Amino acid sequence: MKAAVMNKPFDIEIQEISVPQVHDDEVLVKVMAVGVCGSDIHYYEHGKIGRYVVEKPIILGHECAGIVAKVGENVTKVKVGDRVAIEPGITCGRCEYCKEGRYNLCPDVQFLATPPVNGAFVQYIKHREDFLFPIPDELSFEEAALVEPFSVGIHAAKRSNLKPGSTVAIMGMGPVGLTAIAAVKAFGAANIIVTDLENNRLEAAKKLGATHVINVLEQDPNEEILKITNGKGVDVAFETAGNPKALQSALKAVKRGGKMAIVGLPPQDEIGLNVPLIADNELDIFGIFRYSNTYPQGIEFLQGQNIELKSLITDRFMLEETKEAMERARLNKKASLKVMVYPNGMIKE
Amino acid sequence: MKAAVMNKPFDIEIQEISVPQVHDDEVLVKVMAVGVCGSDIHYYEHGKIGRYVVEKPIILGHECAGIVAKVGENVTKVKVGDRVAIEPGITCGRCEYCKEGRYNLCPDVQFLATPPVNGAFVQYIKHREDFLFPIPDELSFEEAALVEPFSVGIHAAKRSNLKPGSTVAIMGMGPVGLTAIAAVKAFGAANIIVTDLENNRLEAAKKLGATHVINVLEQDPNEEILKITNGKGVDVAFETAGNPKALQSALKAVKRGGKMAIVGLPPQDEIGLNVPLIADNELDIFGIFRYSNTYPQGIEFLQGQNIELKSLITDRFMLEETKEAMERARLNKKASLKVMVYPNGMIKE
Amino acid sequence: MKAAVMNKPFDIEIQEISVPQVHDDEVLVKVMAVGVCGSDIHYYEHGKIGRYVVEKPIILGHECAGIVAKVGENVTKVKVGDRVAIEPGITCGRCEYCKEGRYNLCPDVQFLATPPVNGAFVQYIKHREDFLFPIPDELSFEEAALVEPFSVGIHAAKRSNLKPGSTVAIMGMGPVGLTAIAAVKAFGAANIIVTDLENNRLEAAKKLGATHVINVLEQDPNEEILKITNGKGVDVAFETAGNPKALQSALKAVKRGGKMAIVGLPPQDEIGLNVPLIADNELDIFGIFRYSNTYPQGIEFLQGQNIELKSLITDRFMLEETKEAMERARLNKKASLKVMVYPNGMIKE
Amino acid sequence: MKAAVMNKPFDIEIQEISVPQVHDDEVLVKVMAVGVCGSDIHYYEHGKIGRYVVEKPIILGHECAGIVAKVGENVTKVKVGDRVAIEPGITCGRCEYCKEGRYNLCPDVQFLATPPVNGAFVQYIKHREDFLFPIPDELSFEEAALVEPFSVGIHAAKRSNLKPGSTVAIMGMGPVGLTAIAAVKAFGAANIIVTDLENNRLEAAKKLGATHVINVLEQDPNEEILKITNGKGVDVAFETAGNPKALQSALKAVKRGGKMAIVGLPPQDEIGLNVPLIADNELDIFGIFRYSNTYPQGIEFLQGQNIELKSLITDRFMLEETKEAMERARLNKKASLKVMVYPNGMIKE
Repeated sequence: MKAAVMNKPFDIEIQEISVPQVHDDEVLVKVMAVGVCGSDIHYYEHGKIGRYVVEKPIILGHECAGIVAKVGENVTKVKVGDRVAIEPGITCGRCEYCKEGRYNLCPDVQFLATPPVNGAFVQYIKHREDFLFPIPDELSFEEAALVEPFSVGIHAAKRSNLKPGSTVAIMGMGPVGLTAIAAVKAFGAANIIVTDLENNRLEAAKKLGATHVINVLEQDPNEEILKITNGKGVDVAFETAGNPKALQSALKAVKRGGKMAIVGLPPQDEIGLNVPLIADNELDIFGIFRYSNTYPQGIEFLQGQNIELKSLITDRFMLEETKEAMERARLNKKASLKVMVYPNGMIKE
Repeated sequence: MKAAVMNKPFDIEIQEISVPQVHDDEVLVKVMAVGVCGSDIHYYEHGKIGRYVVEKPIILGHECAGIVAKVGENVTKVKVGDRVAIEPGITCGRCEYCKEGRYNLCPDVQFLATPPVNGAFVQYIKHREDFLFPIPDELSFEEAALVEPFSVGIHAAKRSNLKPGSTVAIMGMGPVGLTAIAAVKAFGAANIIVTDLENNRLEAAKKLGATHVINVLEQDPNEEILKITNGKGVDVAFETAGNPKALQSALKAVKRGGKMAIVGLPPQDEIGLNVPLIADNELDIFGIFRYSNTYPQGIEFLQGQNIELKSLITDRFMLEETKEAMERARLNKKASLKVMVYPNGMIKE
Repeated sequence: MKAAVMNKPFDIEIQEISVPQVHDDEVLVKVMAVGVCGSDIHYYEHGKIGRYVVEKPIILGHECAGIVAKVGENVTKVKVGDRVAIEPGITCGRCEYCKEGRYNLCPDVQFLATPPVNGAFVQYIKHREDFLFPIPDELSFEEAALVEPFSVGIHAAKRSNLKPGSTVAIMGMGPVGLTAIAAVKAFGAANIIVTDLENNRLEAAKKLGATHVINVLEQDPNEEILKITNGKGVDVAFETAGNPKALQSALKAVKRGGKMAIVGLPPQDEIGLNVPLIADNELDIFGIFRYSNTYPQGIEFLQGQNIELKSLITDRFMLEETKEAMERARLNKKASLKVMVYPNGMIKE
Repeated sequence: MKAAVMNKPFDIEIQEISVPQVHDDEVLVKVMAVGVCGSDIHYYEHGKIGRYVVEKPIILGHECAGIVAKVGENVTKVKVGDRVAIEPGITCGRCEYCKEGRYNLCPDVQFLATPPVNGAFVQYIKHREDFLFPIPDELSFEEAALVEPFSVGIHAAKRSNLKPGSTVAIMGMGPVGLTAIAAVKAFGAANIIVTDLENNRLEAAKKLGATHVINVLEQDPNEEILKITNGKGVDVAFETAGNPKALQSALKAVKRGGKMAIVGLPPQDEIGLNVPLIADNELDIFGIFRYSNTYPQGIEFLQGQNIELKSLITDRFMLEETKEAMERARLNKKASLKVMVYPNGMIKE
C-alpha cells in the first residue's frame, strides 16, 4: 500500500509499505479522508513540537475516518464494511488518569502522527477497536475526520461547564476555533462572539453560527464585547489562537465569576496575565489538552443538528499530493481553512 | 462609646461617637476582639487599595467577634448575651450573584472597613442579623475573630474541590496562608507542604499541621516539592503571598491535571505565567475573592478538631492602642503573626 | 381594580379591591396574562394542598406577566412601561438556602397563590423588583407567563446535569411535561422520548420537539424505550405526572449510571420503588421542588430558539370569567392543555 | 498450593491446585489475609446472588492483601517482595464506563469470588498489575484487606459529595457501615450518628468515631436524630443494612436539600418510599455499587489518621479452617464483626 512518509522537514515522499497486521483487539481501516492539522504543518516545517522530536521518517496525519477492512479475532464493536471515525490517541486504560476518566492525560498514550507513532497519510491503518466510532450514512468521511478538531471545542465546553443560554467569546478562527463555534452551539450557547484578523475566517464563522464577529485589526475586541454584552462581559471565553494578545483579551472579556479555557498553545513560555483581575473577579481558568469521551457526542451533534462543518473544507488533495497539501496549508493561511487528503481516491460528498 | 478613627494615613485617634441605632433586622454587638488584617495596614499606610479610596475619616478593622448587646424588632436568630462571630460583608441577597450562591461577588456588598463603610475598631457595632454566627462556649472571641482569615482558606479549598487524602502546597505563611493550613487539614489533606522566607512563620506552620516546610531562601521550593511527591507534584497549590515568584512556583508545583488557587493579590497588574504548562497539563486555576458560606463550617472546624489558630496571636492591644497595634503589625513582620485589638478590655483566653 | 377572589372551593367571585401600595423595593405590575396551573385547580377543588390550607378568601394564579405600572423609590432594574415576566416566589435572601443558591428551598418564601399569599388573578399586582424579568418585544405576555412551568423543566435539567447529545425520557405530558420538552431541547437533548395516555397531548409533544411518543394505553413504555435505545436505556428520565406507575417506569427506563428527576407529586405518600435496581445500576435520583435562577435562562431560550410554547395555549378567558377558566381546566383535561386568563382585556398574540 | 474450594453450598474442601501462571501484565501474590464478606456467606448458603449463580466449584473470598511473589514481563509498578492490597475487580479499561471514570459499572469486570471468577481463599493468586496497591510497612495485611469494605464507604462519601463539617447518619453497623464511619470521618464529617440493633456493634461504632449511637430497638431513630440536630435533620444519610425500615428512616432523617446514599441491597425488589418527601425537600438519592478509584485514598486514610479498622477483626482462622470461618461468620452475627482467614499462616499484627 502507499504511504506519504516524511523523511525530514519539507521532504515527503510516497512509499510502498506493507499493510499492517492486526492484533486480536485491533481493526484495519481503509483510510478515506484525513485533515491536515496545524501540528502536521509544524512537524513538516520544524521537525518537532516541544519535547516531541521527529528522529526517523514518520507518517503524519491524525484527523481521519475510513471503512473497516479487517477485524482482529476479539473485535466485537465493529465489522468489515462499517464506516468509522478514528479517535487518534490510544490510551493505556490502566493508569490513574485513565481510571479517573481523564484519559487525555494518560502518560502512555500512543497518538497518531506524534513521534515516534505513525499517522494516517496511508491507505490502511490499524487501530484499537475501542477508539473507532461507527458513523451514520448521512455523515461523510470528511465530516467524520473533522470530529477530531471538533472534539477540542467540545472538551473545552465540558471543562468550562458551559451552560445553555450562555454568551461565549472565541478568540481565533482557525479550524479549532471554527469548530468550537459548532461545539458551543451544541451546548446551547445563545450568543457567540468571535474574533480573528482575517475576514474570510470571520465569514466562515458566521456560517457556523457566530452571532457577532470582530476583526481585531478594525475594532477593539474588548470594547465591542462590552457593547454587545451591555457592559457585563461574557460567561465563558475560549482562546484558541495561541496568541498572547488574544489571551489577554479573552481574560478581560470575561464577566465577574466567569470562565476561560486556554485551548491554543502560544509559542513563548511566559505570557503576562492580569493576575489581580483573576483573583478579584474570581475567574476560573481551564487548560485544555486534547479531549476525552467526545467522539460519541461529536458524532451525535453532527447528525442531529444543523451544523455545517463541511463548509470548512477549502482544499482537497490525493495521497500522492500530500506534500502539496502541506504546502497549501502552510502558505495559504489567508484563504485555506481546512485542507483534506484522500488516501483512497478523491471523494467529494 | 470609643472608636479608633483613622483621619488620614498614619493618623488614628480615639474619639467618642454615638452608639449606633439598630434597624428591625439588625443587631448591636459589643466588640470583644478584632484582628489587624493586611488590608487594614494597607489603608493605614496608603489610604487606598485599588479602586477603594479613603476619602473621609474611617474606622478600620473587620476580623471581629463579640457579644450581642441589643436586637432589632424582627431579629430571631440571636438574642442578647449570645457570643457571636461577625461575617464582615453584608450583601444584597437579590442580585444574580447572591441568588446563585456566590454572594462574595455581590456588587452592592457593604464590607466592614472598606471605604466608605466603617469597621470594627469600636466598642459597639451594628450588623445585619444573618451575618452573625453564634459560637460555642469553648471558642474564644479571639478564635472567632480569626474565622475571617480562616474563611479565605476554606473558600479556596471549596473552590478547588480539595479532596481528602490530597497533597497540597501553600505558598506564603502570612495569616491567610497559616490559617489555610488549618482549612486544608479540615478538608482532609494528607500532606501539606508550605513555603515562606521567615523561619518563625514556618515554625508556626508546623504547629498548625504543615507536614513539610520549605524556606525559599535556603531551598528551591520546586525541587523540594518534587522530592517530597516522588516527582509527581501536588494535587492543589494555593498562592497566598501575592508574590509573582511564589505564583510561578505554585504553578510549577502542581501535578498534571492538578489545581491552583490564586489567593494573594500581587501589587503589579501583569505577571508572566507559563501558559503552555497550563494547557499541556490541563490545569485548573481558580481566582479567590473573599469567601461565601464559610462561617458555619469554620466555627464547626474550630470546635471539633485539634486546630490551634490561637497560636497565631502574637500581639495584643487595647482599643486606645489601635495605632500602636497598626505600627506593630506593619513594622514587626518578622516576629508578629496576628495582632489583636480588644475594644472592651483585654481578654486573654 | 378587579380581582377574582375564591371565597371557598368552587366559589370564585369578581370583587373590587384597592390597588396595592408599593414599598421602596417593589413594583406595581399591570397583569396581562395568567396561566391556570394544576395547583390552582387543586385549591379550587379541595381548598388545600398538603400543609397549605385556604383559611380565608384567596386570589389564585401565579403564572403571570405584565407591564410595569409604577415603581418604588429604590427600584432601578425596571421602569414604567417595561414588559416583564413575574417569578412568583419572593424569598428572604438571608437564610442558609438562599445564601447557597438554592433559594427555592427558602423556608420563608412568599409564593403567589399559596395560602395565605394572594396571587395574580387581578388587574394589578405588586412584586419585589428582583423577581421581575424584562422580556423582549418578540416575546408575548402569554409566553412570558409560561416561563413559570417552563422553569420547572429547566430546573430539573440543571439538577440532573443534563448533557447535550443525551437521550431523555419524559413521563407525563401535562403542561410541566410539555414545557420540559422545550427545556431539555434547549439543553441539547438529542433524543426526547415522551409518554402519556392522551393522544392530543402526544401530538402537542411532537410539535414541541419530542422525537418519539408513546401512548402507554397502547404500548409498553419500557419495551419501546429499550427498542429506541438499542437495549441501553435513557441517560435521564423525568417523571412529571405524579403517577406511581409512571415513576416505576421512569426508573426502569434509565440506563446503568443514569439519572432520574422526580418532578410530579403523587397523591399517596408511599410508592414502591425498585431499590436494588437503584443500587446495582448506581442511579442518581433528584427531587425537584419549583426552581431557582431559571427566569433569565428561560427567557433567553424562548427568544433565541425555535420553541413554540405558545402552541400549548388552548383556552382563553377574561378575568371576569376566571371561574369558567377553572372549570374548563378541570373538566376538559382531554382537550385543554393550558388555559389562560387575561385580567386587562383579551390579547391574542 | 492449597485452596479452599466450595463444591456446593455448605461444602468447602481444601484442595491442592497448581499455582497460576502469570501473563505479561500480571502479578502472583502470596495471599496473607482475606476477610469474609457478607456476599461470601450468601454464596455459601444459597449458591447464588441475584443473577450470579455458582454452577461449578468456586473459590470464595475477595477482601485480600499479600506479598508480591512473581511478576510478569511487563510489570513495572510492583516488584517481588512488595506488600500490596488487592482491588478485586479487574475491569476492561475500554468501555464507555471505564473511559468515563466509572469503571465499577464496567459490564466486563472480572470480580474475585463472583461466579465464575475464583477468589482469594488460596495461597497464591494472580492479578493484573494495575489493581495492586503497595502498602506502607505500618499497615498490616489485615488492615490492607479491609480497604475493600472501607472502599464502599469512601465511594458513597464521594458520590454524595460529603463536605467537611457535615452531620451524617449511617444506618446499619455491619462491616460496611462500620468502615463507613471511618470513611466519613476522613471526609471531615463533624457529627456521625449511627443506628443498629446490636449493642456490641454500636460499641464498635463508637471506637471508630461515631459521635452518637442509636439502638433502634430502644429508641426511635428519627426522633433521636431530630433531637441531635436541633430539628434540622442530617446533611447526608447512608443506608448500609439493606433493610426497608432503615431505608425509610434514612430518607426521613435527611434535612431539606440533603442527600442519601443507598449502599445496602435489600432482599425484596420493591420498597415503599415517601416520594412526595423526596420532591418537596429536593433530596438527592445515590445508588452505590462497589467503588472506583478508592484504593490509594483508602490506604492514605489508614496511614495518616487515627483510624482503628483493626478493631473490627473479631475472629481469625487458618486457610484449612475456611469452612469454620464461614460458619462463624454466618452463625455468630451478634458477636462477630469481621472474620479473617490467613492462607499462609496466622499473623497477628
